[in-house]
Amino acid sequence: MKLLERRIQAEGRVLPGNIIKVDGFLNHRVDIKLMGQLAEEFARHFDLQGLTAVVTVEASGIALAAICAARYGVPLIFAKKAKSDNIEGGLYRSEIFSYTYRKKVTLIMSRQWLGPGDRVLIVDDFLANGEALRGLTEIVRQSGAELIGIGVAVEKGFQPGGARLREQGIDLYSLAIIDRADQEGFLFRQG
Amino acid sequence: MKLLERRIQAEGRVLPGNIIKVDGFLNHRVDIKLMGQLAEEFARHFDLQGLTAVVTVEASGIALAAICAARYGVPLIFAKKAKSDNIEGGLYRSEIFSYTYRKKVTLIMSRQWLGPGDRVLIVDDFLANGEALRGLTEIVRQSGAELIGIGVAVEKGFQPGGARLREQGIDLYSLAIIDRADQEGFLFRQG
Repeated sequence: MKLLERRIQAEGRVLPGNIIKVDGFLNHRVDIKLMGQLAEEFARHFDLQGLTAVVTVEASGIALAAICAARYGVPLIFAKKAKSDNIEGGLYRSEIFSYTYRKKVTLIMSRQWLGPGDRVLIVDDFLANGEALRGLTEIVRQSGAELIGIGVAVEKGFQPGGARLREQGIDLYSLAIIDRADQEGFLFRQG
Repeated sequence: MKLLERRIQAEGRVLPGNIIKVDGFLNHRVDIKLMGQLAEEFARHFDLQGLTAVVTVEASGIALAAICAARYGVPLIFAKKAKSDNIEGGLYRSEIFSYTYRKKVTLIMSRQWLGPGDRVLIVDDFLANGEALRGLTEIVRQSGAELIGIGVAVEKGFQPGGARLREQGIDLYSLAIIDRADQEGFLFRQG
């Protein structure tokens, strides 16, 4: 999506360790108008007929996913990272490795909110190693819901998450895939 | 707001330890249409002229705050809980006690995204002890931005957070204030 690529080119930065910062419009300060345009683009790509929910994981994916849910007229369900005593039994669980926390994290979702009658789109802001999205797809599989696909704003194409999800036959649609990022700028995969 | 009170009465639950669960429509599965109605009600109460941003803190407040930002046509900025190496220097910081994590947590926000020219509304889904909102108001104060007020969906009126914020002269507007919650149901403060 050229609009997003231009925005990354203009405002994104690369930090040591291949960390890509797009926190001026995507995941710290969020350009909500841009999120609406990304939601539109997902709607063009995916067949959203019969959609019952948008699914994401806390925290930074929630803003984009909420705007998508508003656009598609369905609820948003976000998986949580286990830690709170506010969630009781009756959970779907998936264990992932968090590169942010540098440890194993258990994603949880109440069984009440997702089941075999559901047809869901997973949405997230960022895809690198793909652990969070792997965990989410596992939770959707446990629930028996139908997975339409995964919509991602920014994918780091030089990390393995995207390839792993596509190998499973999942329709993963990333609006900007960064194949290289260095001090000279960003190189995007051509669609 | 009667609409929200009825929803809490119908679907909310009370767990041991005075934990109020409204996770079917507010903070796990999110009824996005309801969030739009809450955003409308905030717009009726607050003078949003010249608003430059909606401010919240990760994670569960982000959905409501994103819908508010969409409705008011401004960006969303969410403070983070310090842990990631994805945030560099140049930060506003505020230390709070997290009752969820049972430890001190530092809220952080990049100085780039908020400053003296801003006029902001803080939005959150839930208010109990008010530590997160105290931290957010401190960050807004550090930035020099003007705080219009705080919009909250559900306040536990029998915990001290709300009173502490109002004592500071902050215009805190909670759409449902629960004064008592037990097995017999919920008692709401009358406006």
